[in-house]
Amino acid sequence: MQQIVECVPNFSEGRRQEVIDEILAGVTSVPGAHLLDVQSDGDHNRTVVTFVGGPEAVLEAAFQSARIAAGLIDMNQQRGEHPRMGATDVIPFIPVRGVSMDDCAQLARRLGQRLGQELDIPVYLYGQAASRPERVNLPDVRRGEYEGIRDSIGSDPARDPDFGPLRLGSAGATAVGARAFLIAFNIYLNSDTVEIAKKIAKTVRHSSGGLRFVQAMGVLVDGQAQVSMNLTDFSRTPLHVVVELVRREAARYGVLISHSELVGLIPQQALLDAATWYLQLDGFKPDQVLENRLGE
Amino acid sequence: MQQIVECVPNFSEGRRQEVIDEILAGVTSVPGAHLLDVQSDGDHNRTVVTFVGGPEAVLEAAFQSARIAAGLIDMNQQRGEHPRMGATDVIPFIPVRGVSMDDCAQLARRLGQRLGQELDIPVYLYGQAASRPERVNLPDVRRGEYEGIRDSIGSDPARDPDFGPLRLGSAGATAVGARAFLIAFNIYLNSDTVEIAKKIAKTVRHSSGGLRFVQAMGVLVDGQAQVSMNLTDFSRTPLHVVVELVRREAARYGVLISHSELVGLIPQQALLDAATWYLQLDGFKPDQVLENRLGE
Repeated sequence: MQQIVECVPNFSEGRRQEVIDEILAGVTSVPGAHLLDVQSDGDHNRTVVTFVGGPEAVLEAAFQSARIAAGLIDMNQQRGEHPRMGATDVIPFIPVRGVSMDDCAQLARRLGQRLGQELDIPVYLYGQAASRPERVNLPDVRRGEYEGIRDSIGSDPARDPDFGPLRLGSAGATAVGARAFLIAFNIYLNSDTVEIAKKIAKTVRHSSGGLRFVQAMGVLVDGQAQVSMNLTDFSRTPLHVVVELVRREAARYGVLISHSELVGLIPQQALLDAATWYLQLDGFKPDQVLENRLGE
Repeated sequence: MQQIVECVPNFSEGRRQEVIDEILAGVTSVPGAHLLDVQSDGDHNRTVVTFVGGPEAVLEAAFQSARIAAGLIDMNQQRGEHPRMGATDVIPFIPVRGVSMDDCAQLARRLGQRLGQELDIPVYLYGQAASRPERVNLPDVRRGEYEGIRDSIGSDPARDPDFGPLRLGSAGATAVGARAFLIAFNIYLNSDTVEIAKKIAKTVRHSSGGLRFVQAMGVLVDGQAQVSMNLTDFSRTPLHVVVELVRREAARYGVLISHSELVGLIPQQALLDAATWYLQLDGFKPDQVLENRLGE
């Protein structure tokens, strides 16, 4: 089965379109790297790029775009509302299909080494690729931003990068890591009582005692109560478990699910997991899906 | 989204491996045609070949394999248990993804015209591509087999082919048509009482008043009651409708579904339909599946 990795690098340029275009060319120039989305924000002065492909293609596309960004963005000049520490600020690798989280952490280490050795950029491993517990969360890694890291790296051992030199150049530093795919998923109730959505959100979300990989809040959308959620690891907290817990909790308040919606993309596996659970297809194998037999 | 058509030609040769290999080479020689399965039966003296690909690739692969079969199989000599009327006996086109039944019927007409004009083979359109109601069912088209058609074609207007000459050569005649994908799906009950499975099968199958595109029977498998089904058009009688009707009917006898199983392949769409129904994803679009964004 075709291996697919998603990569969502954030670049510290959201204003100069010609610079953004050159960075994107670094992605599209790599065979097998498919550009899916580009979001630029002038106030944040930041561009979020989403592309997918096989592990090697994604690794190469990430390196090429970071190489171009390092040559075109001077962090001594760069200003914007969004916290940042490097021309290429952060590069996460995300397993989509046929690859594990460990595979993506390994990709992060390989990319980090190249950025350090070939581009002389200090690299901090974060997320599932972090080498220290205090570097799992990106905001902790980025604390102080470019200027703060520039002034303390080399003197403060806590600032020692995983790869690259003990000094910051004009390209700054880059966080490279691995994380799970994020699914944005909303459930609408046949009710205009937002309090019920808030109670359900409180039950299902991790922060208040609910499911481990669920963030949730209750809101009112066009007069309809909605449980708005981020599923941060569908392989460990599946979509159908979330939906059935919301359904049960809603029934306790005399309310039903009217419909749900996906915001953005979802890996095929998340829907296959739901289909096989509801249909009780215990022995199901992904290669029983005809399209998965077509290979590359 | 990538267009996928399945083609399952039946050839009247199940004994001479060198002949079968040449016919298969006619399929694999076409770029974009993916060979999925080959089933040969010596007693039937018949080989069933399954391949998939884009419409044009599948059309060309079907023509090339039929051209080779016509040159290597002499229907005046061919004998076997399975009814047959041609070297290439029947060629169905099956919509899998991004193509309609009408698209497949059009493919059948285009192939039929080529077989008639270029190979001088009489072609009868059948199934969803049939030009006459009495030719929808293959057994009606094939009645009398090769010898019967050879002796009556030209004299009996009911035998006039849709394409090709009013006489049979050594390659015989070929039925070309379009049909829906067939899903073989079994549901196991937490019961050893086969009578319950038989009652449920009677309720859900079309022949006794049930769902239109369901064939079903109740059997005992390793001491467990099973409802064994063929779903002959999942786009019109969806998998989840079948499962939930079986579940409701089983409950009436105090029985639950223990698990289910797919025999062979299933188009991704059939599982996406089930997932989106159970998850109530009303506005879901197939291009929200990340893999579907990878194009070709």
